[in-house]
Amino acid sequence: MTGSDFDRDTAVEPAGPGHYTGTVTDRWSALAGGPNGGYLLGICLRALRAEIPDSHPDPLVVSGYFLRPGTVGPAELDTEVIRTGRRIATGEARLSQDSRCAVLAVANFTDLGALRGRTTVLGEPPKLPPPEHCLDLTGGQSLPGLTIVDRYQYRFPERPGWTVGRPSREPRMEFWMRFSDGRDADPLSLAPMVDAAAPAVLELGEFSSSTVELTVHVRARPAPGWLACRVVTRYVIDGYHEEDFEIWDSAGALVAQGRQLAILLSEPPGT
Amino acid sequence: MTGSDFDRDTAVEPAGPGHYTGTVTDRWSALAGGPNGGYLLGICLRALRAEIPDSHPDPLVVSGYFLRPGTVGPAELDTEVIRTGRRIATGEARLSQDSRCAVLAVANFTDLGALRGRTTVLGEPPKLPPPEHCLDLTGGQSLPGLTIVDRYQYRFPERPGWTVGRPSREPRMEFWMRFSDGRDADPLSLAPMVDAAAPAVLELGEFSSSTVELTVHVRARPAPGWLACRVVTRYVIDGYHEEDFEIWDSAGALVAQGRQLAILLSEPPGT
Repeated sequence: MTGSDFDRDTAVEPAGPGHYTGTVTDRWSALAGGPNGGYLLGICLRALRAEIPDSHPDPLVVSGYFLRPGTVGPAELDTEVIRTGRRIATGEARLSQDSRCAVLAVANFTDLGALRGRTTVLGEPPKLPPPEHCLDLTGGQSLPGLTIVDRYQYRFPERPGWTVGRPSREPRMEFWMRFSDGRDADPLSLAPMVDAAAPAVLELGEFSSSTVELTVHVRARPAPGWLACRVVTRYVIDGYHEEDFEIWDSAGALVAQGRQLAILLSEPPGT
Repeated sequence: MTGSDFDRDTAVEPAGPGHYTGTVTDRWSALAGGPNGGYLLGICLRALRAEIPDSHPDPLVVSGYFLRPGTVGPAELDTEVIRTGRRIATGEARLSQDSRCAVLAVANFTDLGALRGRTTVLGEPPKLPPPEHCLDLTGGQSLPGLTIVDRYQYRFPERPGWTVGRPSREPRMEFWMRFSDGRDADPLSLAPMVDAAAPAVLELGEFSSSTVELTVHVRARPAPGWLACRVVTRYVIDGYHEEDFEIWDSAGALVAQGRQLAILLSEPPGT
């Protein structure tokens, strides 16, 4: 464990074969008031990673199914490694509170540094001015109840319409992002990060949305530094919407692709 | 059960609490020679659906993790319903052969007919001539080993470059698709269908690829008739690539969004 916020707040303790305990802190809470789903997924990954052989250190694909809202307090993690193959190891982790499963996470792991094969990149990273020429929307101030904003820094090329009551009607944003404490992203932390920014549907005038399911492909180990992010929603259907999230590292490489299905919050979270 | 190919070949028989048996047939095999991953996922969904209350009849999100190639022959299905909420029920199913897990499927179910909420669609369905003015690439002939082509019909607006040895270098295709036997698609069969067409990377001159993980969002119940499909790959990195798959129904509604991570096959399948 390092001294970083993320590493400390996702730490788990062994408590029997495949079983761990952890603590959901109040330091990663999102607009709907509860702990951010990506943060809970991070705790699941820490537990599952502890069971996976060190020959497969990096998450490759991670899926989180969010069954109930998480709450601040103790959590139980139950893991199972289902197969360890030559290239890929696959398992699942369940985060439970009060004996009820809140998050079901499935993930496979590989050695991203050992991948060899064709590379053909047909998309472009976000075109952003350098972070120091971009806007810090909060001016470094905390926002009541929105503690996740203290854990990450965001830099926008211009003030998004939704922040000033004029949603653009184009649910697409590009911005920089990194951990506030200077910890560089690694493959494990990329999965939580695709759920850690303001949803693109805010630009449709929506208040908020709650993640039903989130899948992330980790495509490479990120270079140190700021991450360039692009978030897009194209289809809101009967109150549900997808959100696609790309993360590009400071060297211009795509390092994560996330897609989630979320439900617009016209009523409190919970399914 | 109906008399359709899909319903017959994905049927499962109860064999104890949460446990089912099924048969992987040789009628849905793909280019790499083995049973198509989407087909195996369909068997998983049939077993899990049998455990989910009828109040939640439709898959909403489905994830399949492919741990080993499937083989033609008997299969065991182990299911677990983890939570049944008011709106959404979530569970998992594992397909094993010779006591080894080949597919881990997680899915949640809802009543798609009961969804209410905002609809804002910012994408367009594929612009295709009517199916009867499109090309049947096989001319109704079977292809050796590629039995899945007998189960589905595909209609292309023009002959894709990869079929005549001139890949377009643009890994994107649009085409019509339906079951050959006239069965209309339903929400459960949309999940297998996003894995049932030729991969877009064939237009990059690749031979084939093997699905590592596949997630599908079912966005609506499909209207009867032909389905308009769009498949796109943008990022091939170190031999892995994502593939995005949209299915639009005959009424012009988006009914499924799939994304998979797959590995290019320069060697035989298996991880």
